[in-house]
Amino acid sequence: MSPGPTLWWDKEAGSICYIDQTLLPGRERIVTCRSVRQLARAIRKLGIRGAPALGVAGAFGIALSASLCRKKDPGQFHAQVTRDAELLRSTRPTAVNLGWGIDRVLGAMRDTRDVQAARAAALAEAELIFIEDTACCHAIGDHGAALLPDTCTVLTHCNAGALACSSWGTALGVIRSAVQAGKQVNVIACETRPLLQGARLTAWELLRDGIPVTVITDSMAAHIMRNEKIDAVIVGADRITRDAVFNKIGTYMHAVCARHHGIPFYVAAPLSTFDLKRMAVDVVIEERGREEVAVIGNRIFVPPAASVKNPAFDATPLELVTAIVTEKGVVRPPFTPEDLSRGRTK
Amino acid sequence: MSPGPTLWWDKEAGSICYIDQTLLPGRERIVTCRSVRQLARAIRKLGIRGAPALGVAGAFGIALSASLCRKKDPGQFHAQVTRDAELLRSTRPTAVNLGWGIDRVLGAMRDTRDVQAARAAALAEAELIFIEDTACCHAIGDHGAALLPDTCTVLTHCNAGALACSSWGTALGVIRSAVQAGKQVNVIACETRPLLQGARLTAWELLRDGIPVTVITDSMAAHIMRNEKIDAVIVGADRITRDAVFNKIGTYMHAVCARHHGIPFYVAAPLSTFDLKRMAVDVVIEERGREEVAVIGNRIFVPPAASVKNPAFDATPLELVTAIVTEKGVVRPPFTPEDLSRGRTK
Repeated sequence: MSPGPTLWWDKEAGSICYIDQTLLPGRERIVTCRSVRQLARAIRKLGIRGAPALGVAGAFGIALSASLCRKKDPGQFHAQVTRDAELLRSTRPTAVNLGWGIDRVLGAMRDTRDVQAARAAALAEAELIFIEDTACCHAIGDHGAALLPDTCTVLTHCNAGALACSSWGTALGVIRSAVQAGKQVNVIACETRPLLQGARLTAWELLRDGIPVTVITDSMAAHIMRNEKIDAVIVGADRITRDAVFNKIGTYMHAVCARHHGIPFYVAAPLSTFDLKRMAVDVVIEERGREEVAVIGNRIFVPPAASVKNPAFDATPLELVTAIVTEKGVVRPPFTPEDLSRGRTK
Repeated sequence: MSPGPTLWWDKEAGSICYIDQTLLPGRERIVTCRSVRQLARAIRKLGIRGAPALGVAGAFGIALSASLCRKKDPGQFHAQVTRDAELLRSTRPTAVNLGWGIDRVLGAMRDTRDVQAARAAALAEAELIFIEDTACCHAIGDHGAALLPDTCTVLTHCNAGALACSSWGTALGVIRSAVQAGKQVNVIACETRPLLQGARLTAWELLRDGIPVTVITDSMAAHIMRNEKIDAVIVGADRITRDAVFNKIGTYMHAVCARHHGIPFYVAAPLSTFDLKRMAVDVVIEERGREEVAVIGNRIFVPPAASVKNPAFDATPLELVTAIVTEKGVVRPPFTPEDLSRGRTK
């Protein structure tokens, strides 16, 4: 149960490698990013996706920018890296981890004595974020596994797995840790329209680890909650404000239905996903292109004259969240920033 | 706003014609059924679909069987027609109207004096069902239109439109009648995975009538209920038992979310959809093939080793239904069979 990472720094080539998630499960292709522009494109088209993975990608992106920048003047060097940072930051407005990863690496470069030292500091910090992310997912997994019965069925949405992180996963990390601890976990993966990350990515990576998975359309979840035994819903998060969890569109619907059926609704996310300065109203929900909804596998399913909406995320109020599993422990809303860093609420 | 019918009897050829709904919105192709077997195939692959349309198809199917049967002995003739009836009845187990249409035509043939008269009676009864279905949809539309505000946004799921009936529609009949009465109705059409009847059929037929429609994925409905103004949810039904409404998978999820947001949830269906002898537990929910979920437009999105569920319908308990609109009027659960035939509850 230790498949390779989702994205990583190729030390010899000085570039970023990633598994292209748009091609899974049909094709497992590794792509190399040799420029920040190429990385920005990969993020925008969702070749790299998932909040923690975006944090790592942002971090490596700054390391890449620093390593490529030929300016010798520190002022010009930092100006170039800052421009690249803004380009990367603009690719996805909702996930907070992207900006968090970028800012951590920019911070590490700040007090270096010259350009050479700044480059080294950037790469060291990015590598640290990469390593911390994996450790963090394992800690989330271990804390969350304790919430699951010894034999259980868990419903998840989108992909909050190894592919959404550097490895192991957040929501799927909880499942992996439970399985590693000897629990029997059946997973119901909602396909997650429009881009089918549940069908394509969650099913693929769980099967690779030998964990049984059943794919359903998103619209079947409530029916299955009512008619079969679902012990818990577990999802990841792209941003957690003081009042809401932002995650893939459809998460809110599952939270409403879980509450209606008395099923616990868990969110698994690292502390880097929290943004407690903001309320839900302050967050921009990314609206993506109509073709993601209207076209599937080269066939047009929506008449061209019809309007289409495509919000990529929704906000689930904390009242509907049973608990959030972080690397520090399990916190139950309502919570204060201090509760979070202590990692356990009453 | 009077497009042609969805399926009809071609008097000259003595065969059934229908618009192949699997090809819409890309192609509008009319197919002719010259045998009962061909009709059964068309129903099974959803070339003809929608509860009221299945009632009409079942009725015309028996008329076709009678017209094709060359037996002169009344016993042999009726045995053949009965075999064809069972073939048609077996194609879709959940929609009640199919069996209802078949049984009405079989009943009309029962007391005829010879084979020739039986044939004539079958066709006359089927034509009557076809005409009644359109009248019924208009009556449902007029009763339901009164429930909608003068300017409103209505969310619907799957296709309970002209394409699901002989014409006009049930849920979309309500919308058409409201528009005809001068109301401004914006429609949000949920795409309706796995077979996308909302995206393909509802959007297509509303646009044909100039009614504005926005397509969303099923998973966006709750988010839109929370963040925009939805005045009502209106859906059709495949079978209404004493305790639940069976309709396209996803309906139950919308009902739960509508209740959570205080939005009225209406069902529009003819009295032929009611099956008050049964409770929800007595109804078989059709489980369809995995490829409907796993394959879209020739591309495989679910890894072959993953399990897939594909229940075609779900059951919404009547407690979540604000009102049912029938051709007799608007009834609010709980109701008795007498309330239904009177068409209005307290």
